[in-house]
Amino acid sequence: MRPLRTDLALEARTSRHAEYLPGVEVEEIPDGEVTKTVVRIISQEGAAALNRPRGTYVTLGCRQFVQPEPALSEHLSTQLADIIRPMLPPQGDVLVVGLGNRRVTPDALGPRVADAVLVTRHLGDAVPASLRGRLRAVSAVSPGVLGITGMETAEMVRSIVTHVQPVAVLAVDALAARESDRICCTIQVTDTGISPGSGVGNHRQGITREILGVPVVAVGVPMVVYASTIARDALNLLIHDLNLEDGEHEQALDALISRVVSEQLGDLMVTPREVDAMVEHMAAILAGGINEALQPELERQELLELMQ
Amino acid sequence: MRPLRTDLALEARTSRHAEYLPGVEVEEIPDGEVTKTVVRIISQEGAAALNRPRGTYVTLGCRQFVQPEPALSEHLSTQLADIIRPMLPPQGDVLVVGLGNRRVTPDALGPRVADAVLVTRHLGDAVPASLRGRLRAVSAVSPGVLGITGMETAEMVRSIVTHVQPVAVLAVDALAARESDRICCTIQVTDTGISPGSGVGNHRQGITREILGVPVVAVGVPMVVYASTIARDALNLLIHDLNLEDGEHEQALDALISRVVSEQLGDLMVTPREVDAMVEHMAAILAGGINEALQPELERQELLELMQ
Amino acid sequence: MRPLRTDLALEARTSRHAEYLPGVEVEEIPDGEVTKTVVRIISQEGAAALNRPRGTYVTLGCRQFVQPEPALSEHLSTQLADIIRPMLPPQGDVLVVGLGNRRVTPDALGPRVADAVLVTRHLGDAVPASLRGRLRAVSAVSPGVLGITGMETAEMVRSIVTHVQPVAVLAVDALAARESDRICCTIQVTDTGISPGSGVGNHRQGITREILGVPVVAVGVPMVVYASTIARDALNLLIHDLNLEDGEHEQALDALISRVVSEQLGDLMVTPREVDAMVEHMAAILAGGINEALQPELERQELLELMQ
Amino acid sequence: MRPLRTDLALEARTSRHAEYLPGVEVEEIPDGEVTKTVVRIISQEGAAALNRPRGTYVTLGCRQFVQPEPALSEHLSTQLADIIRPMLPPQGDVLVVGLGNRRVTPDALGPRVADAVLVTRHLGDAVPASLRGRLRAVSAVSPGVLGITGMETAEMVRSIVTHVQPVAVLAVDALAARESDRICCTIQVTDTGISPGSGVGNHRQGITREILGVPVVAVGVPMVVYASTIARDALNLLIHDLNLEDGEHEQALDALISRVVSEQLGDLMVTPREVDAMVEHMAAILAGGINEALQPELERQELLELMQ
Repeated sequence: MRPLRTDLALEARTSRHAEYLPGVEVEEIPDGEVTKTVVRIISQEGAAALNRPRGTYVTLGCRQFVQPEPALSEHLSTQLADIIRPMLPPQGDVLVVGLGNRRVTPDALGPRVADAVLVTRHLGDAVPASLRGRLRAVSAVSPGVLGITGMETAEMVRSIVTHVQPVAVLAVDALAARESDRICCTIQVTDTGISPGSGVGNHRQGITREILGVPVVAVGVPMVVYASTIARDALNLLIHDLNLEDGEHEQALDALISRVVSEQLGDLMVTPREVDAMVEHMAAILAGGINEALQPELERQELLELMQ
Repeated sequence: MRPLRTDLALEARTSRHAEYLPGVEVEEIPDGEVTKTVVRIISQEGAAALNRPRGTYVTLGCRQFVQPEPALSEHLSTQLADIIRPMLPPQGDVLVVGLGNRRVTPDALGPRVADAVLVTRHLGDAVPASLRGRLRAVSAVSPGVLGITGMETAEMVRSIVTHVQPVAVLAVDALAARESDRICCTIQVTDTGISPGSGVGNHRQGITREILGVPVVAVGVPMVVYASTIARDALNLLIHDLNLEDGEHEQALDALISRVVSEQLGDLMVTPREVDAMVEHMAAILAGGINEALQPELERQELLELMQ
Repeated sequence: MRPLRTDLALEARTSRHAEYLPGVEVEEIPDGEVTKTVVRIISQEGAAALNRPRGTYVTLGCRQFVQPEPALSEHLSTQLADIIRPMLPPQGDVLVVGLGNRRVTPDALGPRVADAVLVTRHLGDAVPASLRGRLRAVSAVSPGVLGITGMETAEMVRSIVTHVQPVAVLAVDALAARESDRICCTIQVTDTGISPGSGVGNHRQGITREILGVPVVAVGVPMVVYASTIARDALNLLIHDLNLEDGEHEQALDALISRVVSEQLGDLMVTPREVDAMVEHMAAILAGGINEALQPELERQELLELMQ
Repeated sequence: MRPLRTDLALEARTSRHAEYLPGVEVEEIPDGEVTKTVVRIISQEGAAALNRPRGTYVTLGCRQFVQPEPALSEHLSTQLADIIRPMLPPQGDVLVVGLGNRRVTPDALGPRVADAVLVTRHLGDAVPASLRGRLRAVSAVSPGVLGITGMETAEMVRSIVTHVQPVAVLAVDALAARESDRICCTIQVTDTGISPGSGVGNHRQGITREILGVPVVAVGVPMVVYASTIARDALNLLIHDLNLEDGEHEQALDALISRVVSEQLGDLMVTPREVDAMVEHMAAILAGGINEALQPELERQELLELMQ
């Protein structure tokens, strides 16, 4: 099988068709309609095998996130909060960064989440009496993308971190998946930050602890599959079914696939028809979970009252 | 080759790989950066071959419509006006219908054009003195889609036509193409109206002269390719290259393609990353051309001043 | 006091400064944070006094609707449903009409509600088994405004009613109030339909039972106060405080007020800074209540699952 | 007359009702439909009189900017470019800052302009051959507002300036005016930067050369009048007409005005109905002018081709 672009550790692992990969631990925890999978890359060997940094990658998978079913949305938000919380220092300012381009619908997830995060850092004495002493300081920013700002996203985040001096960064991004049925149906949380080349917008530089000096937790949801991935996948499947994987045709097939895929499909994205509504709904779930993770002393009801 | 979904007569013809089809006349007229192609289906035989009604299908093709290059936009608007004008009765009320769902970005083209059409039917004595006697009566409506209104679009258009009694209807719609490089780079104008099953939103019923009792001119621009089309195309290409089209494998290949395509890809659409901006830009070109076609007594400058 | 533009029967009554008006019955029912007021105009005399048709006008008033406090939103939706339901025939198709211009933020309330209403009329056999026999047929349309379509809204609604043949129409509209603290904090429901000249968009013709032949229930929320109303109010207050209402100055004051108000303020609207968010939130409350009123056999949870 | 909130130096001066103010120079230059006014505050005395810093304030005034009349739009863009260019250093990186909240329609002007500015800083070797050596490096950012980010806008701009090290900052903001007929009909350019307390969003801190260490040119357009300003103005006018300004009533009047204005009107804004369309149109004019000012070596046609 040829490599296919995915931002999900879960898919990277699956595509290896191996029961066991050295340096990679996998644990699957079903919970009602939601399946939680933890992939731990614990050695350099595992990192090489999955082509991503050492660390923990937790995914929440669901058959159907699209429907705004309140009970499921609340369940997902709470599970998300439970995954995020232990990855962050227990106290101190947190900066939420909404990555992506708000004018490209499937890439607007990050900015929309940042818009809905409960921002408290500036409140100071303006905090209502009933909340005093119970709010963690949170700030939020959507730095835009290179083509819109002329500035590397990673550099801009670094300059804001230098200024705000948070104890941790929580970055939210729209991802590319390999399987179309993952779109808007999987949430990945990782303590490794954002890798270079990942995301719908293809971040040129990473946003990581190494670069920022503080822990970076990344929350991502696949919103697109590249058309080239779908075509490549279909072709691989056909080749497999026709038993053409005999080495003889290999080179010709590779050339053919590259021709079909690269020349015609370029940057084309595959999205569901309902992507506008799905981004909106998923942003609400993520913002709910992030707010719950960052403000553990507030009841869910209080949080909902405070969110706009 | 197996049939692939396209709303463009031009592609339907090309995919027949025939120099000459009985009952189908084709004429190609290059004009600078734009290529105009006229497909005339003049017999029942031609209609069957291309699987669409007898009539004239004119397309304007362009390498690149996306860039808001004002000179090219103006050129396209004017060419579009020149194609539309002779298809309409020279006088009398015209109703512009913007088909599609304004909350699904690539399907919002029709409603956006309807928003920008110069509407004059209601002005009566409120017309500025300088324009009196020079304005054609135009009304515009975006009837929504079945899933949003609970009413068949075609029926709603019919009830409005009964009320407004225009001499002709001009319907604008987002189309599906077969080739991804047609997206937002081709404008099709036809005097056959809207066929059932066409459009990004898959109109269940047609919007035609037979149904409405007045001529229907349809203007459409491909905004998506279905992911299933891309996968199917890639597979067909591979099969062709591998010389597997020998009849022996035929059935197995068909089954395989259907499996890959139907099960995994369903309703997924392929769009360019920039589709939000492209819809906006193309809507301006179409509205400009439609306004020029409908108000021949106004100078372009006057039109621009009147458009909001 | 000089007359001031308001679409609320409640304000029309209050401004008369009378304890008792013949032909007008008023009942006030506090319910927690919400106050329900019922104004019944029962004679021609009452209609003349309040300058609006005979019928029942129910308002839900609240100090603060803006905050998306889920418990209060749900409470309001349910109260709204309880008011609407007895005003409609118990069975048969209902057409929901979202009045207003979706491109003018405070006038977009109606179209946004129509977007979120559960539309079922087209489902036929496509209804999920669990809901079969329990859904009322509902359709929804946003007909746009005269300046955008070239067609009188009332006429377009009439042509759709002729086609769909509902047993009743439920019209939703953004209103103008006199007091700025009513903006987005009051919901008015009336069985008199929409009066000519009302609404943010100033409907030229009414949408009433007389015109459509079926009952029309109107739901409205004040979203603006005209700047001229605020200026006029301030001036009247000053005149009152300075005891200038002695008849002597009357004419000069009238002239002065008209000069200040008409010449400078024209069509200017007063809105809160947060009007974009407020429209969105109020549309959700209204759609929730309307869905509850129209689908009494569904649990709230089922409704939420079905709403997009 | 009592003080009224305005961000326009022109209005601050006019409201002094003085032919001559020491330390303030005024020059008016009519140019067809547009009037250019230059207010120069040249001493501390002048600064105190107009309650704003020493510097040059140029306004372009126009009866009607709203209509998208292309010739006038181009004329305004070019005039704006001619005013901005000499205020900036002739060479070196420029950072464009779009101030305001993109989710509050009349406050979204700055972010929309930043979106449309031609951003070149990141292009490096990716510049097309035909443009090489002719592009000035420009970056652009919309830092959001305090309530959304939790960070002082001025501080965030400072941290980005530290990182990008531009030779100048060009800040764009929506302003509050005193006269409603200035809304969207006046462009103010000043070399003094952004003062604390100005703008629709009421910036708490200034964005000035003192704070950033580089020249700050501010471009602003009034998009709102506060309702309190209109009420106060109407009251003052009445008091003036009734000859009540005799000192006797002064205190009572002040109290009355404050009561009417503060208690009832709070933060309410007055905007025209068409503010959504006006913001869009004005953003295009400003972005056109800024691009022309920053890229003097490009023809207007080249600029239009490069702008998205």
